[in-house]
This record gives sequence, structure tokens and C-alpha cells, in this order.
Amino acid sequence: MGPLPRTLELFYDVLSPYSWLGFEILCRYQHLWNVDLHLRPCLIGGIMKDSGNKPPALLPSKAQYLATDLKNLREHYQVPISFPKDFFAVILEKGSLSAMRFLTAVHLECPEMLEKTSRELWMRVWSRVSTGTVGDLWPLPRLLGWPPDGRAHPPPHTHTLFSLCSQDEDITEPQSILAAAEKAGMSREQAQGILEKISSPTVKNQLKESTAAACKYGAFGLPVTVAHVEGQTHMLFGSDRMELLAFLLGEKWMGPVPAASHARM
Amino acid sequence: MGPLPRTLELFYDVLSPYSWLGFEILCRYQHLWNVDLHLRPCLIGGIMKDSGNKPPALLPSKAQYLATDLKNLREHYQVPISFPKDFFAVILEKGSLSAMRFLTAVHLECPEMLEKTSRELWMRVWSRVSTGTVGDLWPLPRLLGWPPDGRAHPPPHTHTLFSLCSQDEDITEPQSILAAAEKAGMSREQAQGILEKISSPTVKNQLKESTAAACKYGAFGLPVTVAHVEGQTHMLFGSDRMELLAFLLGEKWMGPVPAASHARM
Repeated sequence: MGPLPRTLELFYDVLSPYSWLGFEILCRYQHLWNVDLHLRPCLIGGIMKDSGNKPPALLPSKAQYLATDLKNLREHYQVPISFPKDFFAVILEKGSLSAMRFLTAVHLECPEMLEKTSRELWMRVWSRVSTGTVGDLWPLPRLLGWPPDGRAHPPPHTHTLFSLCSQDEDITEPQSILAAAEKAGMSREQAQGILEKISSPTVKNQLKESTAAACKYGAFGLPVTVAHVEGQTHMLFGSDRMELLAFLLGEKWMGPVPAASHARM
Repeated sequence: MGPLPRTLELFYDVLSPYSWLGFEILCRYQHLWNVDLHLRPCLIGGIMKDSGNKPPALLPSKAQYLATDLKNLREHYQVPISFPKDFFAVILEKGSLSAMRFLTAVHLECPEMLEKTSRELWMRVWSRVSTGTVGDLWPLPRLLGWPPDGRAHPPPHTHTLFSLCSQDEDITEPQSILAAAEKAGMSREQAQGILEKISSPTVKNQLKESTAAACKYGAFGLPVTVAHVEGQTHMLFGSDRMELLAFLLGEKWMGPVPAASHARM
């Protein structure tokens, strides 16, 4: 019998792009490290309100940096993340209440579907592909394992303009949420059944409790990873503390795309 | 003849603890990667004013996290960083104008002393050692190459309380700045000669220009690393984008303490 597995709690909201990056890294490492990963959907709006923090994108220079940073990290992390077409309408006006209530209900009803359903909701908001050059799309074929030689950069003469249909960015309408759930592998009936429960006191309270738990750990944004290791609790903010997490766990950090995870994404 | 070296500019202020972490990492990697590192002292107060950003520690939950984060990173990065005894008086009231003018003058007069003098100023503000356990001090002997077996954790029975004299935290008084310069290896006369120039228009303008350059690159805090690679310019914020920097440079990331740098710190 090996050592007891350590527990990681990942608090996230699908409105938070860095939550997606942290989520993918922990999903990749959960089978490489001796850890139990607990996904905890919560509400970023509640955390901002509780801590008095403001969304970083309200500051123009931070919003500008966020877009460039995500573009760089998309390739480095091999997560097909892109800035939404209308960022302020998506992030600041529509919010994520119904999507996060849905994920909370998924967590309660069929937890084995939580990882895939969360990913499909992020894909809707944060993975819009717009007009650009083929070079911009280069990370996508690599995600699918192509080309087989693992070439890091697009070949020359791939700078042809393309225009692809974007994904529907909405995650507030019932039809959008159902579409994401079906793409994750649920039947329409199952997804519909879960959707009907999102306004129940059980689901509402569970989402409130998870958000309150993140606040209690000191969250002022998302993602937050809480590591329980040898009787100690470490709260780590952001998707850029995963190498530190490996250090605290005594595990090996192999970059955002550890070799053994390639086949999984 | 190998490929042309790439240029990295590091904008920093000794009031910024994450600047110290980024600085140490780039100093360690500058001889491992094919890069020319340009250290650019600038003024964090000017960057905050220009961007409209606020120091993160003004938000209580961020200040709390900052302290814990630095404690974790101190060991992981092997940089003897600690929270100042009276954080708000040091950071928010005293500021860093005279220290950063001094570093600017060092840059102009004897640039070969800039790295060591910057480090000594950080040591004054950010390396206070207070009451704690011997285990808390464990990174320090490791910095000095002890124990020789490179053991990662303190042995048992080292949890005895200690109390060491703290360093003087001040970096605003002439005597404090001179002490740091002497510790970096300057003679008293040389340090005094440079100190006399910190109010000259040349020094003041140079500091203003470096601060303005950081703002032009989109800075809203420090450190900022600007990488010039194959005709492209990448602006990276924080000390936690160094693995991404390696990716953009096509160089190998070997963690915050690459093996070959051990003897250098």
C-alpha cells in the first residue's frame, strides 16, 4: 500500500479564463501525482463581492495584457483558449449564475460528468475562433496529435487568412447549457432533468456553500487550489502556482503539458 | 558563430517583492540561455499612477495571501524573502524614490555593480529575519551550499525558537543606501560619489525615461520582462511567467533554481 493520497480542492467558475487553465493542468496531473482532485464549482461574482476585489479587466492596461497573456498561454498550455468577441457583455453583464448552478447540480446528480461538462462550458465562452491566419490555429492540430513529428511552429506559407464560424458564446440560456451538456456526453433527457433542478434550494445552497468555502480560505479571485498535505492546508491562487504546488506536494513538475497527458486532452 | 543573442529587459523596483524573485531567476538563467539581460531600474509609484492600478496589498485578502505566497516561494525559489515588519510604513509611506535614483546612478556610472547593489537593497527591505523556528531558516543554509547532500527539508528537532536581529529595513536614508552599496562591494568613496549624483537632472531624467518605457510597454505593476525575439516583442508581467518566457525563447525551463546556478547565488 502506497502513501495516503493528498486532497486538492479546485474552486472555479467558467467565467474565469485562468480557472480553465488551472483546471486542465490539475486534470492532467491528477493521475500522475498521488492526489485526489475535488472539483468545486463556485461563483466568482460572490468572491469578488466578499473580498471587495474588482475584475482585473476593468483596468484598461490589465485587459490589454490579459488578451496577450491568454494568447501566449494558449499555445504553451495547449488549451484552445481565446478572448470572447464581446468580452464585457459576456463577462460583466451576463454572468455565470445559471451555468454554475447547472454544474453544481451535475456535481450532485452525476459527479462523473462534472469534468467534461465544465470543459464544454469553457469551450463555449472562451474558445471562440475568429478571423486570423492559419498560424494562429496551429495549437489546435497539435491538440489532436498532428503533425506526428510534434513540430512546434507552423510551416511557412500558412499565413493564409481563414474565417471559421465561432461557437455560440452564450452560457446563460437553457438551450446553450443543454448543448454543452450533450456535447459532454449526456443524453438530452438527463441534461433536461438536471436543468430542472438548478433553482432548487439544494442546488442554490450548495453553490452558496462552495463559494463561502472559497472565501473562508481567503479567495479574492479564481481559480483557487487548496492542497491538504500532511495536516497542512495551502491556499494557492491562480493557474501559475502549479509548479509551487508540485514543490509543496513533493511531486515532479513537468510543465503545463506533462507527456503522459497528451493522449487525454 | 552561434545565433544572435536575444535581448531581455527587466523593469523592476526594490519595493516590489515579486521583482526580486523575477530578478533572481533572470540572473540565474542569463548565462544558461542565449540572452542579453538589461536591468532597468524604474519607479513602481510612477507605473501605478500611469496605469491607475492600486498596490495589491491594499485589499486585506490580497495582503494576507501575499504574505503566505512569499513564504512558500522563498523556499521554492531559494531567495531569502520575508515580509517586512511594518509593511505599510515601508511600502506605502516611505516609497523607493531615493533607492531607485541611486540604482539609476549606479547604472550610469558603474553598470557592473547594478546587479549586486539591487540585490543588497532588496535584502534590506525584504529579507528581515524575525522570531520563528529554525525550520523557517532552512533555505538560508542551503543558499550557502549547506548541507552538502542538498537535503530538501530541515532535520527533525530543528523547531527550536530563535530570535535574530533583523536587518535595518530602511532604504530611504543616505546611510542605509551607502551601507547596501558597500555590502555589494563598492568602496565608501565610490558609493558616496554616486549618492551625490542622485539629484542631478541626468539621473532624474533617466529614471523617468525608464519608468515611461515600462508604461509604454503596458506595465501596470512590476516586474515586467520585455523579450525581444526574432523581431517580436513580448511583454510579460510578474515573476511567474518565466516558464512561458523559456517557451517563447525556445529555451529549457529547469525550475526557479536551475542546477548550474547553485554556485552563483
